[in-house]
Amino acid sequence: MRLLEERIKTDGKVRGGDVLKVDGFLNHMIDVRFVAELGREFYDIYKNCGINKILTIESSGIGVACLTAQFFDCPVVFAKKSKTKNIDPDVYSAPVFSYTHGKTYDVIVSKQYLGEGDRVLFIDDFLARGNALMGVVDIVRQSGAVLVGAGIVIEKAYQDGGEKARAAGVRVESLARIASMSEEGGIVFCD
Amino acid sequence: MRLLEERIKTDGKVRGGDVLKVDGFLNHMIDVRFVAELGREFYDIYKNCGINKILTIESSGIGVACLTAQFFDCPVVFAKKSKTKNIDPDVYSAPVFSYTHGKTYDVIVSKQYLGEGDRVLFIDDFLARGNALMGVVDIVRQSGAVLVGAGIVIEKAYQDGGEKARAAGVRVESLARIASMSEEGGIVFCD
Repeated sequence: MRLLEERIKTDGKVRGGDVLKVDGFLNHMIDVRFVAELGREFYDIYKNCGINKILTIESSGIGVACLTAQFFDCPVVFAKKSKTKNIDPDVYSAPVFSYTHGKTYDVIVSKQYLGEGDRVLFIDDFLARGNALMGVVDIVRQSGAVLVGAGIVIEKAYQDGGEKARAAGVRVESLARIASMSEEGGIVFCD
Repeated sequence: MRLLEERIKTDGKVRGGDVLKVDGFLNHMIDVRFVAELGREFYDIYKNCGINKILTIESSGIGVACLTAQFFDCPVVFAKKSKTKNIDPDVYSAPVFSYTHGKTYDVIVSKQYLGEGDRVLFIDDFLARGNALMGVVDIVRQSGAVLVGAGIVIEKAYQDGGEKARAAGVRVESLARIASMSEEGGIVFCD
Protein backbone atom coordinates (compact mmCIF):
# COMPACT_ATOMS: atom_id res chain seq x y z
CA MET A 1 0.00 0.00 0.00
CA ARG A 2 1.79 3.04 -1.37
CA LEU A 3 0.24 5.51 1.09
CA LEU A 4 1.48 3.49 4.07
CA GLU A 5 4.97 3.02 2.65
CA GLU A 6 5.24 6.76 2.15
CA ARG A 7 4.07 7.42 5.68
CA ILE A 8 6.60 4.96 7.08
CA LYS A 9 9.36 6.62 5.03
CA THR A 10 8.30 10.07 6.30
CA ASP A 11 7.49 9.37 9.95
CA GLY A 12 9.12 6.03 10.79
CA LYS A 13 12.42 5.96 12.63
CA VAL A 14 14.83 3.03 12.57
CA ARG A 15 16.58 2.49 15.88
CA GLY A 16 19.43 0.10 16.54
CA GLY A 17 18.99 -1.89 13.35
CA ASP A 18 15.80 -3.79 14.12
CA VAL A 19 13.43 -1.37 15.82
CA LEU A 20 11.05 0.60 13.63
CA LYS A 21 9.36 3.37 15.61
CA VAL A 22 6.03 4.37 14.13
CA ASP A 23 4.86 6.04 17.32
CA GLY A 24 3.70 9.11 15.46
CA PHE A 25 0.76 7.51 13.68
CA LEU A 26 0.29 3.91 14.80
CA ASN A 27 1.77 2.94 18.13
CA HIS A 28 1.57 5.73 20.65
CA MET A 29 -0.23 8.49 18.80
CA ILE A 30 -2.82 7.02 16.44
CA ASP A 31 -3.69 8.99 13.32
CA VAL A 32 -7.25 7.77 13.39
CA ARG A 33 -8.25 8.96 9.94
CA PHE A 34 -5.16 7.39 8.39
CA VAL A 35 -5.51 4.12 10.29
CA ALA A 36 -9.15 3.91 9.20
CA GLU A 37 -7.83 3.94 5.62
CA LEU A 38 -5.71 0.92 6.51
CA GLY A 39 -8.89 -0.68 7.82
CA ARG A 40 -10.65 0.02 4.54
CA GLU A 41 -7.77 -1.70 2.74
CA PHE A 42 -8.13 -4.80 4.94
CA TYR A 43 -11.83 -4.74 4.16
CA ASP A 44 -11.15 -4.62 0.42
CA ILE A 45 -8.92 -7.67 0.77
CA TYR A 46 -11.19 -9.76 2.97
CA LYS A 47 -14.70 -8.44 2.30
CA ASN A 48 -15.95 -11.59 0.57
CA CYS A 49 -14.70 -14.01 3.20
CA GLY A 50 -17.60 -14.02 5.63
CA ILE A 51 -15.60 -12.49 8.49
CA ASN A 52 -17.77 -12.11 11.60
CA LYS A 53 -15.11 -11.38 14.23
CA ILE A 54 -11.83 -9.53 14.38
CA LEU A 55 -9.22 -10.77 16.80
CA THR A 56 -6.20 -8.83 18.00
CA ILE A 57 -3.81 -8.74 20.96
CA GLU A 58 -3.56 -5.87 23.42
CA SER A 59 -2.40 -3.13 23.31
CA SER A 60 -1.18 -1.79 20.02
CA GLY A 61 -3.47 -3.89 17.83
CA ILE A 62 -6.67 -2.56 19.39
CA GLY A 63 -6.89 0.74 17.56
CA VAL A 64 -6.38 -0.64 14.08
CA ALA A 65 -8.66 -3.59 14.88
CA CYS A 66 -11.55 -1.32 15.97
CA LEU A 67 -11.15 1.00 13.00
CA THR A 68 -11.07 -2.02 10.67
CA ALA A 69 -14.06 -3.69 12.30
CA GLN A 70 -16.31 -0.78 11.39
CA PHE A 71 -16.06 -1.74 7.74
CA PHE A 72 -16.91 -5.36 8.48
CA ASP A 73 -19.62 -4.30 10.97
CA CYS A 74 -18.42 -6.95 13.40
CA PRO A 75 -17.04 -6.99 16.95
CA VAL A 76 -13.40 -7.01 18.00
CA VAL A 77 -12.07 -9.48 20.53
CA PHE A 78 -8.74 -8.54 21.99
CA ALA A 79 -6.65 -11.29 23.50
CA LYS A 80 -5.19 -10.32 26.85
CA LYS A 81 -1.66 -10.84 28.02
CA SER A 82 -1.36 -12.63 31.30
CA LYS A 83 1.94 -12.89 33.11
CA THR A 84 1.01 -16.08 34.90
CA LYS A 85 0.57 -19.47 33.25
CA ASN A 86 -3.14 -19.65 32.75
CA ILE A 87 -5.14 -22.69 33.74
CA ASP A 88 -8.53 -20.97 33.95
CA PRO A 89 -10.96 -23.47 32.38
CA ASP A 90 -13.03 -20.64 30.92
CA VAL A 91 -10.31 -19.33 28.61
CA TYR A 92 -8.26 -20.47 25.66
CA SER A 93 -4.60 -19.70 26.15
CA ALA A 94 -1.32 -19.96 24.30
CA PRO A 95 2.20 -18.97 25.34
CA VAL A 96 3.73 -16.16 23.29
CA PHE A 97 7.33 -15.09 23.66
CA SER A 98 7.74 -11.32 23.27
CA TYR A 99 11.13 -10.20 21.97
CA THR A 100 10.21 -6.62 22.83
CA HIS A 101 9.80 -7.47 26.51
CA GLY A 102 12.11 -10.48 26.67
CA LYS A 103 9.57 -12.76 28.29
CA THR A 104 6.76 -15.21 27.66
CA TYR A 105 3.15 -14.18 28.15
CA ASP A 106 0.12 -16.39 28.16
CA VAL A 107 -2.25 -14.86 25.68
CA ILE A 108 -5.84 -15.57 26.68
CA VAL A 109 -9.30 -15.32 25.15
CA SER A 110 -12.51 -16.09 27.01
CA LYS A 111 -14.35 -19.12 25.63
CA GLN A 112 -17.50 -17.00 25.64
CA TYR A 113 -16.25 -14.82 22.82
CA LEU A 114 -14.75 -17.25 20.32
CA GLY A 115 -16.03 -20.59 19.10
CA GLU A 116 -17.38 -22.79 16.34
CA GLY A 117 -19.14 -20.85 13.62
CA ASP A 118 -16.81 -17.86 13.96
CA ARG A 119 -14.84 -16.77 10.91
CA VAL A 120 -11.97 -14.76 12.28
CA LEU A 121 -9.66 -12.11 10.87
CA PHE A 122 -6.55 -11.48 12.97
CA ILE A 123 -5.37 -7.87 12.85
CA ASP A 124 -2.06 -6.63 14.23
CA ASP A 125 0.31 -3.72 13.79
CA PHE A 126 3.51 -5.74 13.27
CA LEU A 127 4.57 -9.18 12.11
CA ALA A 128 8.21 -10.06 12.69
CA ARG A 129 9.08 -13.49 14.09
CA GLY A 130 5.43 -14.45 14.13
CA ASN A 131 5.12 -15.49 17.76
CA ALA A 132 1.92 -13.55 18.38
CA LEU A 133 0.38 -14.81 15.15
CA MET A 134 1.24 -18.44 15.87
CA GLY A 135 -0.23 -18.04 19.37
CA VAL A 136 -3.43 -16.77 17.80
CA VAL A 137 -3.45 -19.67 15.32
CA ASP A 138 -3.28 -21.99 18.33
CA ILE A 139 -6.10 -20.21 20.18
CA VAL A 140 -8.40 -20.15 17.16
CA ARG A 141 -7.73 -23.85 16.57
CA GLN A 142 -8.64 -24.61 20.22
CA SER A 143 -11.87 -22.67 19.86
CA GLY A 144 -13.10 -24.49 16.77
CA ALA A 145 -13.40 -21.21 14.87
CA VAL A 146 -11.93 -20.67 11.40
CA LEU A 147 -8.97 -18.33 11.00
CA VAL A 148 -9.71 -16.81 7.62
CA GLY A 149 -6.49 -14.84 7.57
CA ALA A 150 -4.31 -12.17 9.07
CA GLY A 151 -4.17 -8.48 8.23
CA ILE A 152 -0.84 -6.98 9.22
CA VAL A 153 0.05 -3.31 8.95
CA ILE A 154 3.84 -3.75 8.78
CA GLU A 155 5.62 -7.03 8.11
CA LYS A 156 9.35 -7.31 8.66
CA ALA A 157 9.73 -9.63 5.69
CA TYR A 158 13.41 -10.17 6.46
CA GLN A 159 12.35 -12.09 9.56
CA ASP A 160 10.71 -15.48 9.29
CA GLY A 161 7.30 -14.95 10.89
CA GLY A 162 5.39 -14.39 7.66
CA GLU A 163 7.10 -17.30 5.94
CA LYS A 164 6.41 -19.61 8.89
CA ALA A 165 2.74 -18.65 9.05
CA ARG A 166 2.20 -18.96 5.29
CA ALA A 167 3.95 -22.35 5.34
CA ALA A 168 1.50 -23.38 8.05
CA GLY A 169 -1.37 -22.52 5.68
CA VAL A 170 -2.31 -19.13 7.14
CA ARG A 171 -3.28 -16.43 4.67
CA VAL A 172 -1.22 -13.37 5.61
CA GLU A 173 -1.84 -10.01 3.96
CA SER A 174 0.52 -7.22 4.95
CA LEU A 175 0.02 -3.63 3.85
CA ALA A 176 3.74 -2.84 3.95
CA ARG A 177 6.53 -5.41 3.73
CA ILE A 178 10.01 -4.35 4.73
CA ALA A 179 12.83 -6.09 2.87
CA SER A 180 15.58 -4.48 4.92
CA MET A 181 16.23 -1.51 7.16
CA SER A 182 19.06 0.18 9.00
CA GLU A 183 19.80 3.55 10.55
CA GLU A 184 22.23 4.31 7.74
CA GLY A 185 20.48 2.71 4.77
CA GLY A 186 16.92 3.61 5.68
CA ILE A 187 13.95 1.42 4.90
CA VAL A 188 13.66 -0.73 1.77
CA PHE A 189 10.28 -2.24 0.94
CA CYS A 190 9.68 -5.49 -0.91
CA ASP A 191 8.55 -5.08 -4.52
CA MET B 1 -27.31 7.51 28.58
CA ARG B 2 -30.28 5.19 28.58
CA LEU B 3 -28.96 2.85 25.88
CA LEU B 4 -25.77 2.23 27.85
CA GLU B 5 -27.56 1.69 31.15
CA GLU B 6 -29.77 -0.90 29.47
CA ARG B 7 -26.78 -2.64 27.99
CA ILE B 8 -25.02 -2.74 31.35
CA LYS B 9 -28.18 -4.17 32.96
CA THR B 10 -28.43 -6.84 30.25
CA ASP B 11 -24.81 -7.83 29.74
CA GLY B 12 -22.91 -6.59 32.80
CA LYS B 13 -22.06 -8.98 35.60
CA VAL B 14 -21.32 -7.93 39.16
CA ARG B 15 -18.62 -10.06 40.78
CA GLY B 16 -17.62 -9.97 44.40
CA GLY B 17 -19.32 -6.68 45.21
CA ASP B 18 -17.07 -4.24 43.42
CA VAL B 19 -16.19 -5.77 40.05
CA LEU B 20 -18.44 -4.97 37.11
CA LYS B 21 -17.61 -7.21 34.16
CA VAL B 22 -18.56 -5.64 30.85
CA ASP B 23 -16.33 -7.96 28.84
CA GLY B 24 -19.08 -8.71 26.36
CA PHE B 25 -19.21 -5.28 24.75
CA LEU B 26 -16.49 -3.01 26.15
CA ASN B 27 -13.53 -4.70 27.76
CA HIS B 28 -12.59 -7.92 26.03
CA MET B 29 -15.02 -8.15 23.17
CA ILE B 30 -15.78 -4.68 21.80
CA ASP B 31 -19.17 -4.11 20.19
CA VAL B 32 -17.73 -1.61 17.75
CA ARG B 33 -21.02 -0.26 16.44
CA PHE B 34 -22.33 0.27 19.97
CA VAL B 35 -19.11 1.82 21.25
CA ALA B 36 -19.11 4.20 18.29
CA GLU B 37 -22.50 5.39 19.57
CA LEU B 38 -20.84 6.17 22.90
CA GLY B 39 -18.24 8.11 20.93
CA ARG B 40 -20.97 10.09 19.22
CA GLU B 41 -22.38 10.94 22.64
CA PHE B 42 -18.99 12.22 23.83
CA TYR B 43 -18.83 14.27 20.66
CA ASP B 44 -22.24 15.78 21.34
CA ILE B 45 -21.06 16.80 24.80
CA TYR B 46 -17.67 18.23 23.83
CA LYS B 47 -18.06 19.23 20.18
CA ASN B 48 -17.81 22.98 20.79
CA CYS B 49 -14.73 22.80 23.00
CA GLY B 50 -11.98 22.91 20.39
CA ILE B 51 -10.69 19.41 21.21
CA ASN B 52 -7.70 18.54 19.02
CA LYS B 53 -6.38 15.46 20.79
CA ILE B 54 -7.87 12.53 22.66
CA LEU B 55 -5.82 10.98 25.42
CA THR B 56 -6.38 7.56 26.96
CA ILE B 57 -4.43 4.88 28.82
CA GLU B 58 -3.69 1.43 27.44
CA SER B 59 -5.31 -1.05 27.05
CA SER B 60 -9.03 -0.89 27.53
CA GLY B 61 -9.43 2.81 26.77
CA ILE B 62 -7.96 2.53 23.28
CA GLY B 63 -11.00 1.17 21.47
CA VAL B 64 -13.46 3.72 22.79
CA ALA B 65 -10.90 6.51 22.30
CA CYS B 66 -10.34 5.63 18.62
CA LEU B 67 -14.04 5.29 17.90
CA THR B 68 -14.68 8.64 19.63
CA ALA B 69 -11.81 10.39 17.84
CA GLN B 70 -13.42 9.76 14.47
CA PHE B 71 -16.17 12.23 15.35
CA PHE B 72 -13.66 14.85 16.43
CA ASP B 73 -11.40 14.03 13.44
CA CYS B 74 -8.39 14.18 15.72
CA PRO B 75 -5.62 11.76 16.77
CA VAL B 76 -5.56 9.56 19.85
CA VAL B 77 -2.56 9.46 22.16
CA PHE B 78 -2.51 6.48 24.46
CA ALA B 79 -0.42 6.73 27.58
CA LYS B 80 1.66 3.65 28.19
CA LYS B 81 2.09 1.80 31.44
CA SER B 82 5.66 1.27 32.46
CA LYS B 83 6.59 -0.98 35.33
CA THR B 84 9.80 0.84 36.08
CA LYS B 85 10.06 4.33 37.49
CA ASN B 86 10.56 6.42 34.42
CA ILE B 87 13.25 9.06 34.24
CA ASP B 88 13.43 9.28 30.44
CA PRO B 89 13.78 13.01 29.73
CA ASP B 90 11.68 12.65 26.57
CA VAL B 91 8.48 11.64 28.35
CA TYR B 92 6.00 13.04 30.82
CA SER B 93 5.23 10.52 33.54
CA ALA B 94 3.03 10.15 36.56
CA PRO B 95 2.64 7.28 39.03
CA VAL B 96 -0.77 5.59 38.99
CA PHE B 97 -1.76 2.95 41.51
CA SER B 98 -3.91 0.23 39.94
CA TYR B 99 -6.32 -1.47 42.33
CA THR B 100 -7.01 -4.09 39.65
CA HIS B 101 -3.38 -5.17 39.57
CA GLY B 102 -2.40 -4.15 43.09
CA LYS B 103 0.63 -2.13 42.02
CA THR B 104 1.85 1.27 40.90
CA TYR B 105 2.63 1.94 37.26
CA ASP B 106 4.36 4.92 35.80
CA VAL B 107 2.07 6.18 33.09
CA ILE B 108 4.08 7.84 30.32
CA VAL B 109 3.44 10.02 27.31
CA SER B 110 6.13 11.11 24.86
CA LYS B 111 6.77 14.86 24.90
CA GLN B 112 6.53 14.76 21.10
CA TYR B 113 2.81 14.07 21.20
CA LEU B 114 1.46 16.42 23.84
CA GLY B 115 2.24 20.05 24.51
CA GLU B 116 1.19 23.68 24.60
CA GLY B 117 -1.62 24.46 22.24
CA ASP B 118 -3.26 21.06 22.67
CA ARG B 119 -6.82 20.91 23.94
CA VAL B 120 -7.24 17.44 25.32
CA LEU B 121 -10.19 15.19 26.00
CA PHE B 122 -9.38 12.23 28.24
CA ILE B 123 -11.42 9.13 27.42
CA ASP B 124 -11.58 6.00 29.55
CA ASP B 125 -13.83 3.01 30.11
CA PHE B 126 -14.09 3.27 33.92
CA LEU B 127 -13.74 5.87 36.63
CA ALA B 128 -13.68 4.54 40.19
CA ARG B 129 -11.09 5.90 42.61
CA GLY B 130 -9.77 8.25 39.96
CA ASN B 131 -6.11 7.31 40.08
CA ALA B 132 -5.74 7.04 36.31
CA LEU B 133 -7.58 10.32 35.79
CA MET B 134 -5.49 12.19 38.35
CA GLY B 135 -2.34 10.78 36.74
CA VAL B 136 -3.54 12.15 33.42
CA VAL B 137 -4.31 15.53 35.00
CA ASP B 138 -0.72 15.60 36.20
CA ILE B 139 0.70 14.66 32.78
CA VAL B 140 -1.39 17.21 30.91
CA ARG B 141 -0.33 19.89 33.42
CA GLN B 142 3.34 19.00 32.86
CA SER B 143 2.89 19.26 29.11
CA GLY B 144 1.35 22.71 29.13
CA ALA B 145 -1.72 21.45 27.27
CA VAL B 146 -5.28 22.17 28.43
CA LEU B 147 -7.37 19.31 29.78
CA VAL B 148 -10.81 20.27 28.52
CA GLY B 149 -12.48 17.39 30.27
CA ALA B 150 -12.93 13.68 30.69
CA GLY B 151 -15.37 11.37 28.95
CA ILE B 152 -15.99 8.25 31.00
CA VAL B 153 -18.11 5.33 29.90
CA ILE B 154 -18.93 3.98 33.38
CA GLU B 155 -18.42 5.88 36.62
CA LYS B 156 -18.67 4.09 39.93
CA ALA B 157 -20.23 7.11 41.58
CA TYR B 158 -20.16 5.41 44.99
CA GLN B 159 -16.38 5.71 44.92
CA ASP B 160 -14.65 9.04 45.26
CA GLY B 161 -12.76 9.40 41.98
CA GLY B 162 -15.34 11.54 40.21
CA GLU B 163 -15.86 13.75 43.25
CA LYS B 164 -12.12 14.23 43.71
CA ALA B 165 -11.58 15.14 40.06
CA ARG B 166 -14.53 17.55 39.95
CA ALA B 167 -13.34 19.17 43.17
CA ALA B 168 -9.98 19.67 41.46
CA GLY B 169 -11.74 21.55 38.68
CA VAL B 170 -11.84 18.79 36.07
CA ARG B 171 -14.97 18.55 33.97
CA VAL B 172 -16.06 14.91 34.12
CA GLU B 173 -18.87 13.61 31.93
CA SER B 174 -19.86 10.00 32.49
CA LEU B 175 -22.34 8.19 30.25
CA ALA B 176 -23.47 5.85 33.04
CA ARG B 177 -23.12 6.52 36.76
CA ILE B 178 -23.54 3.65 39.16
CA ALA B 179 -24.98 4.56 42.56
CA SER B 180 -24.57 1.08 43.99
CA MET B 181 -24.17 -2.52 42.95
CA SER B 182 -24.00 -6.00 44.41
CA GLU B 183 -24.40 -9.56 43.23
CA GLU B 184 -27.73 -9.80 45.05
CA GLY B 185 -29.15 -6.33 44.53
CA GLY B 186 -27.96 -5.81 40.97
CA ILE B 187 -26.95 -2.44 39.57
CA VAL B 188 -28.57 0.84 40.57
CA PHE B 189 -27.82 3.92 38.49
CA CYS B 190 -27.78 7.51 39.72
CA ASP B 191 -30.80 9.56 38.70
